[in-house]
Amino acid sequence: MRGAARAADDRGGRPGLAGRLAGFACRATPTESALATMRLSLFDWAACAIAGAAEPAAAILRAQAEAEGGAGQASLAGSPAMRVPARAAALVNGAASHALDYDDTHMGPVLHPSVAVLPAALAVAERQGAGGAETLRAALVGAEIMVRLGLWLGPDHPGRGFHPTATCGAFGAAVAAGLLAGLDAGRMEQALAIAATRAAGLQSVFGSMGKPLNAGTAAAAGIEAADLAAAGFTCPPAALDGPQGFGPAHGGAARSEALLSLDARWEMARVSHKLHACCHGLHAMLEALAGLDLPASDIDRVTVRTHPRWLAVCDDPAPTTGLEAKFSYRLTAAMALAGRDTGDPATFSAAACTEPALVRLRDRVDVVGDRALPETAAQVDVTARGGATTRLVHDIDTPLPPERLRRRLEAKAGVLAGAERAATLAAATLADVPDIAEVGRLLREAPA
Amino acid sequence: MRGAARAADDRGGRPGLAGRLAGFACRATPTESALATMRLSLFDWAACAIAGAAEPAAAILRAQAEAEGGAGQASLAGSPAMRVPARAAALVNGAASHALDYDDTHMGPVLHPSVAVLPAALAVAERQGAGGAETLRAALVGAEIMVRLGLWLGPDHPGRGFHPTATCGAFGAAVAAGLLAGLDAGRMEQALAIAATRAAGLQSVFGSMGKPLNAGTAAAAGIEAADLAAAGFTCPPAALDGPQGFGPAHGGAARSEALLSLDARWEMARVSHKLHACCHGLHAMLEALAGLDLPASDIDRVTVRTHPRWLAVCDDPAPTTGLEAKFSYRLTAAMALAGRDTGDPATFSAAACTEPALVRLRDRVDVVGDRALPETAAQVDVTARGGATTRLVHDIDTPLPPERLRRRLEAKAGVLAGAERAATLAAATLADVPDIAEVGRLLREAPA
Repeated sequence: MRGAARAADDRGGRPGLAGRLAGFACRATPTESALATMRLSLFDWAACAIAGAAEPAAAILRAQAEAEGGAGQASLAGSPAMRVPARAAALVNGAASHALDYDDTHMGPVLHPSVAVLPAALAVAERQGAGGAETLRAALVGAEIMVRLGLWLGPDHPGRGFHPTATCGAFGAAVAAGLLAGLDAGRMEQALAIAATRAAGLQSVFGSMGKPLNAGTAAAAGIEAADLAAAGFTCPPAALDGPQGFGPAHGGAARSEALLSLDARWEMARVSHKLHACCHGLHAMLEALAGLDLPASDIDRVTVRTHPRWLAVCDDPAPTTGLEAKFSYRLTAAMALAGRDTGDPATFSAAACTEPALVRLRDRVDVVGDRALPETAAQVDVTARGGATTRLVHDIDTPLPPERLRRRLEAKAGVLAGAERAATLAAATLADVPDIAEVGRLLREAPA
Repeated sequence: MRGAARAADDRGGRPGLAGRLAGFACRATPTESALATMRLSLFDWAACAIAGAAEPAAAILRAQAEAEGGAGQASLAGSPAMRVPARAAALVNGAASHALDYDDTHMGPVLHPSVAVLPAALAVAERQGAGGAETLRAALVGAEIMVRLGLWLGPDHPGRGFHPTATCGAFGAAVAAGLLAGLDAGRMEQALAIAATRAAGLQSVFGSMGKPLNAGTAAAAGIEAADLAAAGFTCPPAALDGPQGFGPAHGGAARSEALLSLDARWEMARVSHKLHACCHGLHAMLEALAGLDLPASDIDRVTVRTHPRWLAVCDDPAPTTGLEAKFSYRLTAAMALAGRDTGDPATFSAAACTEPALVRLRDRVDVVGDRALPETAAQVDVTARGGATTRLVHDIDTPLPPERLRRRLEAKAGVLAGAERAATLAAATLADVPDIAEVGRLLREAPA
């Protein structure tokens, strides 16, 4: 058995992936545009965590963290009076922020960076008394490494059943926590190696409390890995990418091109913020429909064209629950055509599934797979009763102008956290230097 | 994504693996001989944990648990004055008990049941005030499920790089913790599903602090899973064996024969207790050499025959460190020929690697792979200076008579924990009903 570890370390002195990522993490100089995106992610993440704190998965985890207690290091979403150890806060806050499935997504590897990285960064920042600029940078670098690892692993990793938000998230959280705990590159390499033997999470728990748990687990494991490395714990760096390391064991393709231009191009500058409270596969259609100016009563037929990969996920023709509604092109199109706020999670309810006006519209919608479309695009043809057809097209990979994105995220935060809390949160997070203490305060006071 | 979860749950009402194991766990009736073996494992495990508490990996984890603090539920190896939450105690005690690599092994799937299951059982027993009989039964059932899962997964699971003690250990710990926390079969099924998305651990960290960490992680994850299930947390049971579940994702072969005769035949009754402080691959040779009656000065040549699988692991011809010595047929044979106590971890030192008398003997030993031998056997030919050859054979799958095994484990515990503590520990654990409070007390007072 020892033979395997020895062989895995035999790189002739060249740094492996953990060493390269650790070196990048400790010397990275983020661009202003990447930092600006991360500020929006912090704002959006906190709004999701505030609303998600009331979900059952978050409530159960919070009650356990409160019962365990311990050093009062970090804020717990929905727990006004109590601080808990950073690890425990990250577990709860990660689950709370992912419980509504409304947080940010990187569409490259398809993972959710903020729900793994930000709970770890925030908790360690509170523990260490770190400033907002330092915290924002640590979270950005951690998220960048998480996304790059997702790209490095490639599609067989989720294809085998692993949940990249959980697995890659443990590494991203370790980097964010490690930067705030002051790890040098050597210790950071150890933190990544420790994260390699801790990272876990399955897609087969999707649709259950296990999905938000996975995000929280990643955040907590990242803190544990960083803290162990800080205390001198050692692990072979080849645990990440060596023979039988994390990558090969978990279906990783070791795509070295995923690491090109580290520090020159920031993948996190391309992260998508959800503006609709449903599966990301429906968003291009909903954005396209936002351009329509036709009363619902005048609509004869609607044909939605989308990449076929989404048909396996979002083609529920007649949903009956709020969760199912979030995966239905037809019902969600009907909601948009009827002017409902698809940015409000409450719109996706069992009642909506049987509402006659929505069902009538739903039954006028056809969904067609079209390989000619990118996975991020939708084309919608709306035929009016008079016979005229309007073609609407949207690709969610086309970024919104920053000011417009910000205004829409502010509206979303208002729906999630209430107008007053959203305004306070915007002031705390969208400033040049985020006010981390204020974010913690708003999390603690989240309705629970 | 939801589609996958839905498909995974579609079993037409038949229970999946998690349901079957949960049903077994909640109704199992252990045999007296399986319980007797588990008593020996408890005794042996505690001696390993007491000695391992002083190892650096355990010391770092203990310091972190002490710094985090929290509810004083369970004893921490090497921490006389402080109790910590059960989860934290299991993490530290699991790592402490595996730090010397001297704990029990099931040679079927090749995993270490006690270091994952007993820390979880002991910590939850202390928290819940459970009695010794209940604790012993919970640990036995958890260990049985851990071993059966290892057999169910098959050899590709470790072959891909997963560490079965860590991965299967999370399930075994969840069952042990869940039984002591009073879960019914439905909740136990949920605990196993939660463990499925938490189980992790790589072989690529062998030879580092990561290996004992893996055992502790499994024990802690098991408690978390059981506690979440007790609190109403839900996860699809298909997360264990459904499409893209834990098994398929982790190289599992889904060997249904591994589950035959559950409750009729106890795999844990066959667990091996290490009697030498080195790799299990060397034990058959050492037991064979124990039958030799020839002074070292009279030895001309020694030829060790072993199954070739061990040559990849234990064939270090000229080790230079204590750790390397534990993987060297030649040096370890020399130690046995020279009358050194291979049951004492201190025997495996860097000094021993260069000691002239041992090096001279080492250089008289040849090691040969022989596929005709079982993996558990060794054949040793010792040629005396006069030319006479003695052939010694041992198969460690042949159990020692119970009384002889007990005496040797008592001697081992004396080396690990000191004679007085070992006697107290034997009295506490080898009685019909183990005294769990006394085990906790001895752990707390472990030299650290």
